[in-house]
Amino acid sequence: MEWIMSNTGRELRSRIDADGAMTLSLEQVAIAEPGDDELVVRVEAAPINPTDLGLLTGPADLTTMEVLQGERTGIAFTVPQERLPAFRGRLGQSLRVGSEGAGTVVRAGRNLAGLEGRRVGMIGDGMYADYRLIGGRNFMLLPDGANASDGASMFINPLTALGLMETAGREGHKAIVHTAAASNVGQMLQKICLADGMPLINIVRSQEQVDILRGLGAVHVLNSKNEAFSTQLAEVIAQTGATIAFDPIGGGKLGGKILQAMERAAVAKMPSYDRYGSSVFKQLYIYGALDLSPTILNRAALGFRWSVSGWLLWPFLHSVGPEVEDRLRQRVIEELTTTFATHYTRTISLAEALEPEVLLAYKRLATGEKYLIDPTRG
Amino acid sequence: MEWIMSNTGRELRSRIDADGAMTLSLEQVAIAEPGDDELVVRVEAAPINPTDLGLLTGPADLTTMEVLQGERTGIAFTVPQERLPAFRGRLGQSLRVGSEGAGTVVRAGRNLAGLEGRRVGMIGDGMYADYRLIGGRNFMLLPDGANASDGASMFINPLTALGLMETAGREGHKAIVHTAAASNVGQMLQKICLADGMPLINIVRSQEQVDILRGLGAVHVLNSKNEAFSTQLAEVIAQTGATIAFDPIGGGKLGGKILQAMERAAVAKMPSYDRYGSSVFKQLYIYGALDLSPTILNRAALGFRWSVSGWLLWPFLHSVGPEVEDRLRQRVIEELTTTFATHYTRTISLAEALEPEVLLAYKRLATGEKYLIDPTRG
Repeated sequence: MEWIMSNTGRELRSRIDADGAMTLSLEQVAIAEPGDDELVVRVEAAPINPTDLGLLTGPADLTTMEVLQGERTGIAFTVPQERLPAFRGRLGQSLRVGSEGAGTVVRAGRNLAGLEGRRVGMIGDGMYADYRLIGGRNFMLLPDGANASDGASMFINPLTALGLMETAGREGHKAIVHTAAASNVGQMLQKICLADGMPLINIVRSQEQVDILRGLGAVHVLNSKNEAFSTQLAEVIAQTGATIAFDPIGGGKLGGKILQAMERAAVAKMPSYDRYGSSVFKQLYIYGALDLSPTILNRAALGFRWSVSGWLLWPFLHSVGPEVEDRLRQRVIEELTTTFATHYTRTISLAEALEPEVLLAYKRLATGEKYLIDPTRG
Repeated sequence: MEWIMSNTGRELRSRIDADGAMTLSLEQVAIAEPGDDELVVRVEAAPINPTDLGLLTGPADLTTMEVLQGERTGIAFTVPQERLPAFRGRLGQSLRVGSEGAGTVVRAGRNLAGLEGRRVGMIGDGMYADYRLIGGRNFMLLPDGANASDGASMFINPLTALGLMETAGREGHKAIVHTAAASNVGQMLQKICLADGMPLINIVRSQEQVDILRGLGAVHVLNSKNEAFSTQLAEVIAQTGATIAFDPIGGGKLGGKILQAMERAAVAKMPSYDRYGSSVFKQLYIYGALDLSPTILNRAALGFRWSVSGWLLWPFLHSVGPEVEDRLRQRVIEELTTTFATHYTRTISLAEALEPEVLLAYKRLATGEKYLIDPTRG
């Protein structure tokens, strides 16, 4: 085989100790030989998703950030004592970081012979590494001509966007509200909704984001900073009949306001007054935590037919079963460089991911900004 | 027939006008002849439930309360302008008040011949009245020997308590948390849980309420005013495996704290750390609005497998269908004076219900206090 493997590679690790000392570091680890149904993949592209920040910085007090002294590459932080209890389950463990990525197969197990040299997308922890052992349903072959950056984000965001759409359809809703809608997932969802004929109300926070979505052909885009936002939201919800909302923000009052607007639209169509509100069921799914502050739900004029729930990709896929998941995966592969194209603001090396100013930059998480780690850059 | 009927009777009505003027008044209305499947019932007992306060005082500014001048018996209030939009659906309408009650049949339609003189419990609006026309599934015959006050509250609270229990069972939970647990519904739920072998964690706010529930044989009763409350809650949730909570309060942080304690108990049993939290689904149902302030849901360490939803008796009964409802109704009749006995603090006349100091007293809604209106008292 033409690939030359070293016996070890670097892995980005995150560790919090019982005293609150937190470390992000690059560790040299042995590369295992693949089992019969496994591959060793040289990682060439791995995105920094919002979900990865939970391990990269998580509960750390960023003002305490210091570059590690000595031979190890890395950063040290302190986690404030009051935040520690929630992380009890991981104290003292060196956790691998990076939830998806793509690269080239450098070694294949007996049952996967012939895949050497092929590019694959991968899902699972530990993608911020030189090499990743992978198997089972945790990889997909990239179509011919696709490069590693095309496949780096082919699991989480595409399957999330398809999963949101699938959820809305299965639960019988006829229009969707989406917040932080200019996000990578939001853009994918808009393309899916246009293709599948599902009305989508996009809520964003700037004119720039409005323009991004308009550029994709979005019909309903509301800027929540506009004075007329509440009125516009009520109008477009009444017009579309939206009764489901997906919210990756989580904190604050926006989700509740959306539910109230849905209820108002339903009440306006009632023939007579009912103190318990409408009989229309309204669902808000919180699928992210861009705002860690509490969710504030004003129940005035909300009635009793509503639900606010967490939504997470993996339990969703589990609940719909492998056949549906395979259908969604197939669509991702077919539309990898169109519907599910992800644009990266900047590509950095593994070592750069642990430079303080770079970390602060990707930690900002601005919509439209997305970092890609390419471990082959050093 | 031995009952002498007048052609008219009084009805307590609630009206809000577009300018915010609100009136509660007794109006003389004609008593209709019953249809073939209807009864005319002389109302002898009708409780003031929390749900009735929505029409009795609702959005009114109580400091503006004035006794009506002139011939009509009643009270006038002002509704602040900012609260009016939520009540748009009822402006200008004279609404009947009183959601359940009991009394004696004074006239029966052709298909219900023979029921004259029998006592019935009734569900539906307009029970604060001298007479009520009723039919269909909206009444139940009281067992022999039961008086009107025994049957006055046989629908809402008993079916709610049974409905909560049924919901927990259907959704696969093995222990329940209940807030404001010394309430009428709470006491019924405790008796049902003891009879049916479902562990119940009661949360109350005073030692007196603790004593009430202990007196019923409650095993788990926590006073949320105790310093050790959070620790105790975590312990007893871990011990019982409770994953569902019913909360008639709605406002504030308590519901979210219960969900967090459930998640903490689930995480403690996980073999390894998962940044998305446990795979245990946790459900909080808000079935009342004792606190109208917003629900504050702290999602820290809550994971993504949770739901906060409205729960309302009528949609629940609709969802389970008439067979289940009949089973629950039958249990209410069988245990009317035991499990489902309601104790009233004070019995008042229809006219007294519209006296300012009496209204302020029942508006207070203190747990354990419950008023009964007996229209035959004048």
